[in-house]
Amino acid sequence: MAVFEVTILGSSSATPAYNRNPSAQLLNINERYYLVDCGEATQNQLNRFRIRYSRIDHIFISHLHGDHYLGLVGLLSTMHLNGRKNPIHLFGPPELKEIIDLQLRVSETVLRYEVIFYATHTDHPAEIFSNNDISVETIILNHRIPTTGFIFREKPRKRKVNIEKVAEYKVPVDFVQLLKYGIDYTDKTGKRIPNEELTFDPPAPRVYAYCSDTLYTEHFISQIEGADLVYHESTFLHELLERARETLHTTALQAGQLAAKAKVDRLVIGHFSARYKELEPLLEEARSAFPNTFLAIEGEKFSIIAS
Amino acid sequence: MAVFEVTILGSSSATPAYNRNPSAQLLNINERYYLVDCGEATQNQLNRFRIRYSRIDHIFISHLHGDHYLGLVGLLSTMHLNGRKNPIHLFGPPELKEIIDLQLRVSETVLRYEVIFYATHTDHPAEIFSNNDISVETIILNHRIPTTGFIFREKPRKRKVNIEKVAEYKVPVDFVQLLKYGIDYTDKTGKRIPNEELTFDPPAPRVYAYCSDTLYTEHFISQIEGADLVYHESTFLHELLERARETLHTTALQAGQLAAKAKVDRLVIGHFSARYKELEPLLEEARSAFPNTFLAIEGEKFSIIAS
Repeated sequence: MAVFEVTILGSSSATPAYNRNPSAQLLNINERYYLVDCGEATQNQLNRFRIRYSRIDHIFISHLHGDHYLGLVGLLSTMHLNGRKNPIHLFGPPELKEIIDLQLRVSETVLRYEVIFYATHTDHPAEIFSNNDISVETIILNHRIPTTGFIFREKPRKRKVNIEKVAEYKVPVDFVQLLKYGIDYTDKTGKRIPNEELTFDPPAPRVYAYCSDTLYTEHFISQIEGADLVYHESTFLHELLERARETLHTTALQAGQLAAKAKVDRLVIGHFSARYKELEPLLEEARSAFPNTFLAIEGEKFSIIAS
Repeated sequence: MAVFEVTILGSSSATPAYNRNPSAQLLNINERYYLVDCGEATQNQLNRFRIRYSRIDHIFISHLHGDHYLGLVGLLSTMHLNGRKNPIHLFGPPELKEIIDLQLRVSETVLRYEVIFYATHTDHPAEIFSNNDISVETIILNHRIPTTGFIFREKPRKRKVNIEKVAEYKVPVDFVQLLKYGIDYTDKTGKRIPNEELTFDPPAPRVYAYCSDTLYTEHFISQIEGADLVYHESTFLHELLERARETLHTTALQAGQLAAKAKVDRLVIGHFSARYKELEPLLEEARSAFPNTFLAIEGEKFSIIAS
């Protein structure tokens, strides 16, 4: 079964602290790499975990606070120096293009590859990307500047052929491929065999939601409902709820409560404030509302196994 | 005697490689900190070597290739979040201001402290800064985009009083302070005692030159002549001289030759190409022309002892 895996590259909010790096994650979906956010020194983290840059073709930036994108120009530059030829597809707020263009211009750098830019917007959630493996849609978050999360939804898979039934009903070999797409079989006598009798349900499409910086909000629950894995920022403990509100962030307890309400399978919390040396209290707090919670720790991998 | 010390924070050219970080150095001169270049993840390096950001008041950026400044906005942002109030004095090419302003604007960040910006220019070398301890002047380098090096010159120190002679000539206590400034003493009988007889020469002012990215050039030799310590880029071995010329860089041999011609005391080479895992061949090559050469390695400190 194709891999669907998230690797945490950075879990720190705002500033690096206690060897925690600012936000970045790598998704490996069916051996295609998608980078989500790119805080300063993300390229060092990719080196550290021996992840080959060349396999990243898509980069998604949630918003333009430095801890979510300051590693981008350095990474693009390294890809250039490493001889990259394939285009990079870059998704982020409109001003991101302006920043990159200015920095390349003053350094008189003309990248050897194309950066294809897709501006994200925060007026409403939208599907912004789709290939054979996945579609990606934005989540509108509530932060100090325009911010989106991203949902990665696996495309529905083909149905699995029931070999025994195919033999029993003598389905011609040529027709077997069509069964995978849910088509019923009609035999020579004109008898219609429902597809369900000849195939098994495919694994459910896997869903990963990345909920970057945001005030606690439930307005996107329907989008993430039932997701296999949700990353949600948990900058503070709930005792700092007022601080979370002022800075438009979420507490660990709130992240757990949201995961419970959205009936997701697993929750990963991250974007930890530099004030926390130990992260266990944040984990315990989120688990009090949603037991199946885990910490985003640099280098940790979260796989979704097809069910 | 006041400290005059360079700490290497990054020694890699273009991209991070083999745990080498892009260019950055910290100068501690009389317990004031000066940051010279600020490649990506410089703040991580400052953390790693337990250097307190709050003591950096002056930042000098040689040019706008990413490996020399991409860590700057993150560092300024962290200083802001850490509650900095004192201004930062920032020296660099004019477009640096534009880049910082854009990035702060899109993140809707208003720094709690002032960034006082001084544009550097490459039409001619100039003194760009002076305080009680040092003056700083630019070196005009020959690189693909406008690039300056920086020379940090200690201010001449006061002369040292010769206690025995002062007693012998019965110089009044009030006058002793004036002796430190080289003033001659005239006694009650009208006899003039030359200052040299009452004082010792002060230690020679210490000089550190930072020669960032450049094609080999001798035009600034007179500026760095006799310097106590010179950092000069040595991106390649001399077998890659053509590559060095194409990319406007210097070889290790050339850096050694320049140090010999300029009769400096010590040479530190750095800005190593990512192709070199081992740096010893670069060191040996530079030493073949100038024996007193050392490698810029992350965390290494080079002190200049007043002589």
